[in-house]
Amino acid sequence: MSVEYADRAKSSSATGDYETLAFEVTDHIALITIDSPTNKNGFNGTMRNELIAAAQRADSDDDVRVVVLTGKGRFFCPGADLTSGGTTFDYESENNVESDQAEPVQLVDGFRRDGGGQVSLAFAALRKPIITAYNGAAVGVGATFTLPTDIRIASSEAKFGFVFVRRGLVPEAASSWFLPRIVGVSRALDWSYTGRVFGVDEALAAGLISRIVEPENLLDTALEMARDIVANASAVSLGATRQLLWGMLTADSPWEAHRVDSRTVYELGQQSDVAEGVESFLEKRAASFSLTVPQDYPDFIPSFPDKDRID
Amino acid sequence: MSVEYADRAKSSSATGDYETLAFEVTDHIALITIDSPTNKNGFNGTMRNELIAAAQRADSDDDVRVVVLTGKGRFFCPGADLTSGGTTFDYESENNVESDQAEPVQLVDGFRRDGGGQVSLAFAALRKPIITAYNGAAVGVGATFTLPTDIRIASSEAKFGFVFVRRGLVPEAASSWFLPRIVGVSRALDWSYTGRVFGVDEALAAGLISRIVEPENLLDTALEMARDIVANASAVSLGATRQLLWGMLTADSPWEAHRVDSRTVYELGQQSDVAEGVESFLEKRAASFSLTVPQDYPDFIPSFPDKDRID
Amino acid sequence: MSVEYADRAKSSSATGDYETLAFEVTDHIALITIDSPTNKNGFNGTMRNELIAAAQRADSDDDVRVVVLTGKGRFFCPGADLTSGGTTFDYESENNVESDQAEPVQLVDGFRRDGGGQVSLAFAALRKPIITAYNGAAVGVGATFTLPTDIRIASSEAKFGFVFVRRGLVPEAASSWFLPRIVGVSRALDWSYTGRVFGVDEALAAGLISRIVEPENLLDTALEMARDIVANASAVSLGATRQLLWGMLTADSPWEAHRVDSRTVYELGQQSDVAEGVESFLEKRAASFSLTVPQDYPDFIPSFPDKDRID
Repeated sequence: MSVEYADRAKSSSATGDYETLAFEVTDHIALITIDSPTNKNGFNGTMRNELIAAAQRADSDDDVRVVVLTGKGRFFCPGADLTSGGTTFDYESENNVESDQAEPVQLVDGFRRDGGGQVSLAFAALRKPIITAYNGAAVGVGATFTLPTDIRIASSEAKFGFVFVRRGLVPEAASSWFLPRIVGVSRALDWSYTGRVFGVDEALAAGLISRIVEPENLLDTALEMARDIVANASAVSLGATRQLLWGMLTADSPWEAHRVDSRTVYELGQQSDVAEGVESFLEKRAASFSLTVPQDYPDFIPSFPDKDRID
Repeated sequence: MSVEYADRAKSSSATGDYETLAFEVTDHIALITIDSPTNKNGFNGTMRNELIAAAQRADSDDDVRVVVLTGKGRFFCPGADLTSGGTTFDYESENNVESDQAEPVQLVDGFRRDGGGQVSLAFAALRKPIITAYNGAAVGVGATFTLPTDIRIASSEAKFGFVFVRRGLVPEAASSWFLPRIVGVSRALDWSYTGRVFGVDEALAAGLISRIVEPENLLDTALEMARDIVANASAVSLGATRQLLWGMLTADSPWEAHRVDSRTVYELGQQSDVAEGVESFLEKRAASFSLTVPQDYPDFIPSFPDKDRID
Repeated sequence: MSVEYADRAKSSSATGDYETLAFEVTDHIALITIDSPTNKNGFNGTMRNELIAAAQRADSDDDVRVVVLTGKGRFFCPGADLTSGGTTFDYESENNVESDQAEPVQLVDGFRRDGGGQVSLAFAALRKPIITAYNGAAVGVGATFTLPTDIRIASSEAKFGFVFVRRGLVPEAASSWFLPRIVGVSRALDWSYTGRVFGVDEALAAGLISRIVEPENLLDTALEMARDIVANASAVSLGATRQLLWGMLTADSPWEAHRVDSRTVYELGQQSDVAEGVESFLEKRAASFSLTVPQDYPDFIPSFPDKDRID
């Protein structure tokens, strides 16, 4: 996290700083609400940039301990904004809305970076738990960029679809990495081959979501889950746990996890949160953890392998 | 895919070219039916060669968009043909039926290549979706060589067994790689330690199959699933999706997926299937995709890591 | 396995050799029973050493074919012994009970090795199946060190908790590697973020355990499962199957599995257990396997990658 970014975060603290979403922090919970009524929450370059900024802002704010992501309106995010029609994904076409953006285009290996993937990786890099509460349809990139979020619950009216093969595309936003690890490779292939839109029951059975909630209770439920984590957990523990569990999916063996564990247990064991955690447990009282992230985050915790990181 | 192979494929277009199976293409679906009544569909060197040839033929035929694999008779494939009795797996014994085959034996690291694994890898290399419809018992190698197929459904009369420890062997056909990734390592160990034969309910609960169908409806169900995919999906999308989802199980991190996604979205985005996919969606009509595989398959899509590939 | 160890194993054959557990071998089954009533089965340095010794003893005894792990009393293992209070995990504190142990402290990368992880890796290295039967609460390290055991069943009175974030710690004992591979990364994150204690129904649904048993039947059920494996399987097959299935979770691709399979099938195929396994099957009689482990264990079977191994 660069100094430049930290400054930017402070300067954009009001909700009105974004066009496509709202960002607010209450009781150590950052709530990101996708809200772009003019195009029904369709994903475009502006939303991409703002979701990345919101993720990084939550990560860099020591007051934030848990992140909740949801949407406003009928849709969570129904997929790419198709304003450019058949040239939506042809970035060399002069009819492509995104192709004449003023912003410098980011490249990887000489190719324009996939926008959904930029958002996925911003969420993957978080050092705070993130809960997604799907208020409505999450289709295409609207489904894939949420896969790196940790816990996913849905309104009973939500729907999901990995529709890429029906558009001549492939599952993007790094979903080829995430989806098989979340729901298994067979289910991931089934959804990706048929491109069909499916409901919450199938999503729950497959483990894509862990809970179905009545629409009017969705946000309260997500916030209650977040509050429970805030109330009981050390922020440093949460951040390190997140990066360890995701990161060790790529580790060669449990011996690698043991190397990291040994240093982590040794170093955290000398910190005040551990003393408070054990003492409060023995005294049967609520713990009061004082360490915060990023300030106290241990820099030796590995994340996804750095060698592959682009941003 | 070599030119030699493409020629061979064309020259063996009739069903009667195989001893142990039937191969036919209808409506862009290649149907491979194991049918070796003289030994009850037992797996031997001939079946191995013919399954590999059938897989490669389906892969190399631009008219084929989806593959369906099933069996005829009481069994799908009940395991290795045990004609050689106790010397069945002793390829140095003069009593071993396979040991005097005229064909040159293929070696890896100086050892005779495992036959089931050769079939598994031929299926793994496919650039088309493959659905297995188990008509009856799939036991031993008859279960393991089907694990790399993408979607597995079964007749209510099917059975499964990973019986290797009861024969003094180990799960082969690369199933040590596939089975834990499909049903989880604990379930895979349970089935592999006990070697017990189990029914479709347990297979469904574990995710080995995704659907149980009455015997008389099995083939129609599989073909209907295949037709649905053919009708709605770009062939290039299907092939790339298949290789991406399986291949990224071996990737170091989602950052690697993002590298591939960025190039794939960029390059596919300029092709006609994407324009047709988006336009047909906006016009609420069925899409008509013209690209075919292998002709239009993007050569930059990674598959399983090439460095480890033997064939 | 060093010669020194083999000697030590023989010299400690009586149950009374351990302070915190009992070890007995009956009918080729090694039963390890955690039994430390003075501290309610709390995990400490002595238990760590004895669990490692018990695992290695079972591994090195050719008479042992399957291992069963359970606990005695109300708890299986409720977590770390917190006698040292807030300094329990501060190994530099003079108030830390473990810090003045006479034993030489083992280091990795310069840091004191995590004790739970030492136990986990000892279980991971086993060349025999291991079944855990949770008689009661398995919390904290009491849950994590059992994750590398293969099959887990529980008394209906058992409970589980990955409570580390509530103590200012992180999931240890290499559980960041094991837990997401057993129950999926989303479920693993949920349990690890909330740190809540949960019952057997949730554990069963997530695949942490495969069966719930009435308390009075727990041990009999586990032993019956073990006896069934002993009666039907080759010991060499079991050991090789265990290492292959766990080990291939770290393999680059199924092509790597195929390399190993080819050698394994070829070499095992010439051994007496295979001849007996096939002949007994054809003669419809029980098999009588004579090979034992470690004596006949094939040294070419890969385990978890050696380069990462510390012990």
